[in-house]
Amino acid sequence: MKKIKIGIIGLGTVGTGVVKTISNFWDSIEITKIAVRDINKPRNIEGLDKSLLTDKAEEIVDNPDIDIVVEVMGGVNPALDLIKKAINNGKHIVTANKEILAKHGEELFLLAKEKNRVILYEAAIAGGIPIIMPVKTILRANKINKIAAILNGTTNYILTKMDKDGASYDEVLKEAQELGYAEADPTGDVEGFDAAYKIVTLATIAFNKRIKINGIYREGITKITDKDIKLAKELGYKIKLIASAKIDEAGRADVRVHPMLVPEGHVLANINNVTNAIMLTGKPVGEIMFTGPGAGEFPTASSVAGDILALSAEEAENVEIGETENRYYISLNTTDNPGSIGVIGTICGNHKINLTDILQKGTNPDSTAEVVVITGLSKEKNVKEALKEMKKSSAIVKINNLIRLMN
Amino acid sequence: MKKIKIGIIGLGTVGTGVVKTISNFWDSIEITKIAVRDINKPRNIEGLDKSLLTDKAEEIVDNPDIDIVVEVMGGVNPALDLIKKAINNGKHIVTANKEILAKHGEELFLLAKEKNRVILYEAAIAGGIPIIMPVKTILRANKINKIAAILNGTTNYILTKMDKDGASYDEVLKEAQELGYAEADPTGDVEGFDAAYKIVTLATIAFNKRIKINGIYREGITKITDKDIKLAKELGYKIKLIASAKIDEAGRADVRVHPMLVPEGHVLANINNVTNAIMLTGKPVGEIMFTGPGAGEFPTASSVAGDILALSAEEAENVEIGETENRYYISLNTTDNPGSIGVIGTICGNHKINLTDILQKGTNPDSTAEVVVITGLSKEKNVKEALKEMKKSSAIVKINNLIRLMN
Repeated sequence: MKKIKIGIIGLGTVGTGVVKTISNFWDSIEITKIAVRDINKPRNIEGLDKSLLTDKAEEIVDNPDIDIVVEVMGGVNPALDLIKKAINNGKHIVTANKEILAKHGEELFLLAKEKNRVILYEAAIAGGIPIIMPVKTILRANKINKIAAILNGTTNYILTKMDKDGASYDEVLKEAQELGYAEADPTGDVEGFDAAYKIVTLATIAFNKRIKINGIYREGITKITDKDIKLAKELGYKIKLIASAKIDEAGRADVRVHPMLVPEGHVLANINNVTNAIMLTGKPVGEIMFTGPGAGEFPTASSVAGDILALSAEEAENVEIGETENRYYISLNTTDNPGSIGVIGTICGNHKINLTDILQKGTNPDSTAEVVVITGLSKEKNVKEALKEMKKSSAIVKINNLIRLMN
Repeated sequence: MKKIKIGIIGLGTVGTGVVKTISNFWDSIEITKIAVRDINKPRNIEGLDKSLLTDKAEEIVDNPDIDIVVEVMGGVNPALDLIKKAINNGKHIVTANKEILAKHGEELFLLAKEKNRVILYEAAIAGGIPIIMPVKTILRANKINKIAAILNGTTNYILTKMDKDGASYDEVLKEAQELGYAEADPTGDVEGFDAAYKIVTLATIAFNKRIKINGIYREGITKITDKDIKLAKELGYKIKLIASAKIDEAGRADVRVHPMLVPEGHVLANINNVTNAIMLTGKPVGEIMFTGPGAGEFPTASSVAGDILALSAEEAENVEIGETENRYYISLNTTDNPGSIGVIGTICGNHKINLTDILQKGTNPDSTAEVVVITGLSKEKNVKEALKEMKKSSAIVKINNLIRLMN
């Protein structure tokens, strides 16, 4: 099998995740070069071959051996010129660069079409959540007319913390910066630019209409006070930075990013911390929702790597249910006798089953007592053996039900 | 552009949805034939050309003009033989048939590979939710090791109703049958066969391991009593029919369908009625979730049609934010004077803005009163004009914030 050769531009958080992920697939993918700003900077990648590093990105975009250029450096300059040069040199592009897509997507897609190359960018919108590709392929038959989404983890983290701790915007921003959830200059996130770049590209795909970044309304969260959040809560709302997009029958698009009061029962009100979520409404599908990690080294790497990978299948062996471990809810009727619970405990103990909850529900008309127990983690076959023994015991009148617990 | 010619086998609920959906794309797709049991049965499809109907499915699978055979008849016989014949005749297959995939998938995929044809089946698992294709493509770089899902709408509806109404299984089943959510013979759903077929195919794709239907543990919901549901609730759980699959480091798969107690705070505990949900855990992506309609004419048609469609893009025009309509939360400080609220009401009235909530929050240290109002649906430009007028009013000391409401 011919190996696919890739060159990676950028070895920050996302680039590092990509290298670590791709290294699991070195049979089919070869990293030919990695362009970095400083080749002497220490890198947190086990077994990284330093000879792959270069500080000249041209060694990637001009390299005739490379099939795919993975651009994960971010920003418009010099990424835009590098991507254009790579396409002109016949390379496919995988990028996580939402800013370039929002500002120069049209130009890049036209160039790629002309050169018969492909630009993939699943990682640019909502990190690890598969959204671009489902919309482009399996949801294609739909007329999607509405998107409501939480697309920026930093602002969602800040709003969640302000709500939970009753803290001010400034306090929470400082804490988020210390934790690495917000950048030293947080403008791109807190003023809604990041979410705006993402919704522009997502709406362009979903509506099959080119949405222009300058046409959309954008407002960040810097004016949201702890008082607003408290008052909203009294009124039954959470405040979230919502990226929304609608398109009417005439093809007019309404795309915006701004804080919104979201009713507490609404699913988006319950998306917390750095999680992202996207609700799509369309015909014929109705309403579907995707949630997951919207940023970070590994989730983003999942989408970048997904854009370049192929795998093959093997045979698997099934585990016998008897060997599996679960917690169990067991409902039974016992004789109305103080020793009955002790009998259950003894039988369970004999079969290495711990009980974490015992609920005695009083006496039934037939003078039996209703008991529910919940077990600790136990082997299915041990539980089945214990039930057999219980059935034989004179203290236990009837086993009503056995249901497994979800952990 | 060459039209893609399709033949459809089956014109029940799903087939009808497919025909209605595809008719929006008649520029690129042509329905050549539709095989039905009874060509004289009245059909709820506007403008259906009756000459397309045939009661001989061979006219589809043997038709040299047809590129894609869409099998939406369900069941193993005669669907299996028809699909095999179609593949042997060089046709691609789109199917919603989970039973055939679970029982004969391996055989069919081998045959398709040999004949260089493709079998797509997004609609077979979780109806309108895009799950098979994301797992096969964009999530490919992941080692998915855990799936927890609600894959059967009928049983989830029954359990939801039993919980909400405190009704017995038999009562709710009867009601579900009357509403068309359960079949006259509900065995396939309530005994967990349907969910088992789906999880087997999903786990096969997600784990890249052939999971065999006979190896998995399956238990339905017929033994769940209203008492179990009540007791579980007392203990902080909901009872759900969970399709789960795990794979360990050694490649051993644990795949099962059975009722489980799900902690109330768990997302799956809050998936109600006929909605489906799938949680996937893998590396590097982490945990992602997909929710949406798991069955029904149109959601299923979305996935069937998605498997065969391609579209192209146009230009769009943006709506000015001023012309958009929203509800607004406006927080302001007024003079501590009984007439202040009246001033707000008058100004809003002048600009065609209704107020739905007014919250007076007492007096601040500087003797101003804190007031929050929520408006009815109003034009953004009218609200902006009203705010300008408020700023000029001596009754209003300060406008603290304006935030839009999500509807």
